[in-house]
Amino acid sequence: MSFIEQLNWRYATKRMVADKAVPQEKVNAIVEAIRLSASSYGLQPYNLLVIQDKELLKKIQPIAYNQPQIGETSTLLVFAVWDKPTQERIDAYFNLIASERGIPVEALAGFKTTVEGTISNLDEATAYNWMARQAYIALGTGLAAAAIENVDATPMEGFNPAGLDELLGLTEKGLKSVVILPLGYRDEANDPLASAKKVRKSTEDFVISL
Amino acid sequence: MSFIEQLNWRYATKRMVADKAVPQEKVNAIVEAIRLSASSYGLQPYNLLVIQDKELLKKIQPIAYNQPQIGETSTLLVFAVWDKPTQERIDAYFNLIASERGIPVEALAGFKTTVEGTISNLDEATAYNWMARQAYIALGTGLAAAAIENVDATPMEGFNPAGLDELLGLTEKGLKSVVILPLGYRDEANDPLASAKKVRKSTEDFVISL
Repeated sequence: MSFIEQLNWRYATKRMVADKAVPQEKVNAIVEAIRLSASSYGLQPYNLLVIQDKELLKKIQPIAYNQPQIGETSTLLVFAVWDKPTQERIDAYFNLIASERGIPVEALAGFKTTVEGTISNLDEATAYNWMARQAYIALGTGLAAAAIENVDATPMEGFNPAGLDELLGLTEKGLKSVVILPLGYRDEANDPLASAKKVRKSTEDFVISL
Repeated sequence: MSFIEQLNWRYATKRMVADKAVPQEKVNAIVEAIRLSASSYGLQPYNLLVIQDKELLKKIQPIAYNQPQIGETSTLLVFAVWDKPTQERIDAYFNLIASERGIPVEALAGFKTTVEGTISNLDEATAYNWMARQAYIALGTGLAAAAIENVDATPMEGFNPAGLDELLGLTEKGLKSVVILPLGYRDEANDPLASAKKVRKSTEDFVISL
């Protein structure tokens, strides 16, 4: 299948075949695509949780308004942004660049000043929204990777982030959950949307050419 | 190349070969991938501008802090969210679903009430940030599509949205630009980053397994 055919194949699956696990090498490919995603300045101001513990998934389900996919999935991805873009985190990023590229961190001073200047000017809500947007690029990458792997994936904003953060101990880790993504296989018998036509704005209505 | 290899190949290109145009069929494939992107409720609360007019691109460059890629690209994509998620726009979406699936719009009443209930509770800033996140899923999809097509693409938040909205007449269209993406081909001779090692957090630092 071409990428366009794979994107046409995917949809936000409402019911997944219970406990039909996604093979670990496919999970790894999706996670790796997410890790490689673009982010502003390359900063990756978020982490990815990969949850496969069935008992934990059962506890997450009520926090996600009892959506059935959380009970059916064997792998739930949670995108969690930093609570704050601290100086320590920025320093760690620049140390990583220097070490990966084998250059002194001082050689990155100009770039670092730019990043610090942008980020230190953001109030807490603006910083959160900016980091969440970066995580959504990664969500888009992960959805593409899942489609390429013929794995179903359902992005969910419908959950209580504070409840999830508490359950997963994210607050102590300095993280905040923003969006979750169960992986699995569509249950065609029980998901009416499995056979429904995909609906998107027409190219004519979507694209403005100048 | 595998998708992972394609993601490793891509980077935020700092210099593009001037006027080396991306073939229109590749532009179309990237645009189509963006059109097919996931969004919350499938609402697609944004439009995509495809700008290929060189005179217009010259006027955009100073609005984007004179970043050279804007002067070098032959195709600039602009992601622009709705100024407001109005009832008219929600109605249009549900009419589209009904028409595409050949069902009466009344059959969607429950889903429509859910969407209206969620959206009518959002203040203007929250609505903007929510719509922007949806556009960033599409940005992630577009970056994946570009990498698959071996086309370079540089996501840019560094521009003056109000200035761009004015130049492109977006305000009258009820739209607000959120992120822009020039497409092109890396200028290896002039872009020091073309040969720099890609830097990402290690899997160990990025993934939390539970």
